Amino acid sequence: MFGITPSARLRPSPFFEATLAEGVTAFTTYNHMLMPTAFGDPETEYWRLLKGVSQWDVAVERQVQLKGPDAGRLAQILAPRDLSGQQVGQGKYVPLCNHEGVLINDPICLKLADDLYWLSIADSNIWFWAGSIAAERKLRVEVSEPDVSPMALQGPKAEDVVANVCGDWVRSLKYFWFREASIEGIPVVVQRSGWSKQGGFEIYLRDGTQGTRLWTIFKEAGRAYDIGPGGPNWCERVESGLVSYGGDTDTTTNPFEVRMGKYVNLDVPDDTIGIAALRRIAAEGPRRHTLGIVLDAGGPVRPGFLWNPLYRDGRKVGDLTNCIFSYRLHKNIGFALVSRECKVGDRLEARIGGSMQAGTLTELPFI
Amino acid sequence: MFGITPSARLRPSPFFEATLAEGVTAFTTYNHMLMPTAFGDPETEYWRLLKGVSQWDVAVERQVQLKGPDAGRLAQILAPRDLSGQQVGQGKYVPLCNHEGVLINDPICLKLADDLYWLSIADSNIWFWAGSIAAERKLRVEVSEPDVSPMALQGPKAEDVVANVCGDWVRSLKYFWFREASIEGIPVVVQRSGWSKQGGFEIYLRDGTQGTRLWTIFKEAGRAYDIGPGGPNWCERVESGLVSYGGDTDTTTNPFEVRMGKYVNLDVPDDTIGIAALRRIAAEGPRRHTLGIVLDAGGPVRPGFLWNPLYRDGRKVGDLTNCIFSYRLHKNIGFALVSRECKVGDRLEARIGGSMQAGTLTELPFI
Repeated sequence: MFGITPSARLRPSPFFEATLAEGVTAFTTYNHMLMPTAFGDPETEYWRLLKGVSQWDVAVERQVQLKGPDAGRLAQILAPRDLSGQQVGQGKYVPLCNHEGVLINDPICLKLADDLYWLSIADSNIWFWAGSIAAERKLRVEVSEPDVSPMALQGPKAEDVVANVCGDWVRSLKYFWFREASIEGIPVVVQRSGWSKQGGFEIYLRDGTQGTRLWTIFKEAGRAYDIGPGGPNWCERVESGLVSYGGDTDTTTNPFEVRMGKYVNLDVPDDTIGIAALRRIAAEGPRRHTLGIVLDAGGPVRPGFLWNPLYRDGRKVGDLTNCIFSYRLHKNIGFALVSRECKVGDRLEARIGGSMQAGTLTELPFI
Repeated sequence: MFGITPSARLRPSPFFEATLAEGVTAFTTYNHMLMPTAFGDPETEYWRLLKGVSQWDVAVERQVQLKGPDAGRLAQILAPRDLSGQQVGQGKYVPLCNHEGVLINDPICLKLADDLYWLSIADSNIWFWAGSIAAERKLRVEVSEPDVSPMALQGPKAEDVVANVCGDWVRSLKYFWFREASIEGIPVVVQRSGWSKQGGFEIYLRDGTQGTRLWTIFKEAGRAYDIGPGGPNWCERVESGLVSYGGDTDTTTNPFEVRMGKYVNLDVPDDTIGIAALRRIAAEGPRRHTLGIVLDAGGPVRPGFLWNPLYRDGRKVGDLTNCIFSYRLHKNIGFALVSRECKVGDRLEARIGGSMQAGTLTELPFI
């Protein structure tokens, strides 16, 4: 484990002081901010997410705000998914691609009003990309990064905690739907969402000075449910088949290769960025796809930072994009971004460090 | 000091193994990669840069490659600096702005051929921004990130080391000029450049598999000059007045506010991105400017990660964008991004943590 050198290029979040008080031990960086990833006891943090309720600082999910008469038009130009039926109060998961159909982010698109959208982004600088598209097309829309910082409550008991704070109306929110609200005077957006498959909510803080207060309100409300800190959980997300933009994708990956094809609508307008390329890729069939892989090794395998090459009969067929020892399966599991010719059941070998690790391709999700 | 959680979103560089062997203790992240920042002895690393030769892994300075018949046209569209006289083999420092004239990167633009340019970038995703501009304008140019990873040799003895490896021709390279070369069969570009004011070279490795070999070749050649590892040096760069994109700028900063006005040419073609906004800002005069500040405090002040607000007579007039204790001046020095009305000699107060620190505005650079 190495240290992170402090720098204004890597902003702490409004919840930074709160997570310090919780005993954060490690961060990742994401959208030029620090995101807590560990609080010293990974297995406890995992089971808390699975069985109870976990509180996450995910302020790094920055919002790219589209505001103005052409906001909806810009959202549709950026997203190769049909947004024509999207209602105010509804979020939609959208892959964003460049003109070549390469995935450059996969935000949730929130429609707050007919002239106001947020893209709640993964780890890449979408704000100036989106702004330049708006300017090149002379749209009447302002693209900015507002003062909005999500905090997540995840796990089977998250709904009880959020209902305790916000009211029982949160129980009837459908997935990715949201409502604007006020919590003890703090302006927020409450959405059923979050980067796990254990259920939960994201609370979008709309006043960066109130991070510690908001954190504390949910921490107090969660005390009866044994709430504790956590973060997007590597083990759970791999078990659940959740792909990470930038982690499980590279600079040539298209949505069809990483199980996002169902979020692409090929009949969106022709001026949608990347749609011509996506139609071509869909017609030809993508060259790669993402499957699960279970390694034979009994104990935990440490794959390091990098993708690890995957071989079939000695020939490279793709990459192991990540790998972790599953607390539930007691096996090393990971994602294989492999040639289309590779199928479930195929035996592959991963070169990890100096050694070869054999494994079998599987369906996703694992659980 | 906190740890960094390993992730494929944060790639190690081709020199990662070499810097591990050198005893790296801390990293920052930059362009979704890890950059070594410390090797356990900051003062030794500082004086090595000032008096000898320091070897840096700056592979995070990714190249955005523009290739094709319209490469030069795209470079000029992206950069509000006159590139018409740029020759093959010449690099130019260029501020890149969005359509509103906000600084979004400040690369060195290298012209490798009439149809081949590299932008050696600071910390933001320029490749898909540049690619989308090229596509929107229907230019005949491919925008990509090639396998190119710079390593820097910095300090007064850097030239001797690089000449020992490459030959005496490097001594006649002018600032930012470069030449393609081969070192024991490893393809490189050798440029007189680097993110310090102590002089030196950047060696652009063009084969990511050869990082350890290239590192070792220069380490061996530098042994007689007491070479050692380092990284872009916070103290030296503040003393020298070097502004860091993303660290000393925010999402509203224009080049005139951060001492980059001399690299903007207002008479570039009208289709240059941001030039209309930059002309307007230049005519009106920017609202802020960057000066030095020397704090009164005797011992080192720890400013944390964030910008710290600056006050004059109790009114906020700007931000202390960073602050460090200078080894040469024995004072806390930093950059003040302040209202235009603030002048050299003004007395300001910085709120750092819970306390106020008085200081005086100064010219830049400090040394």
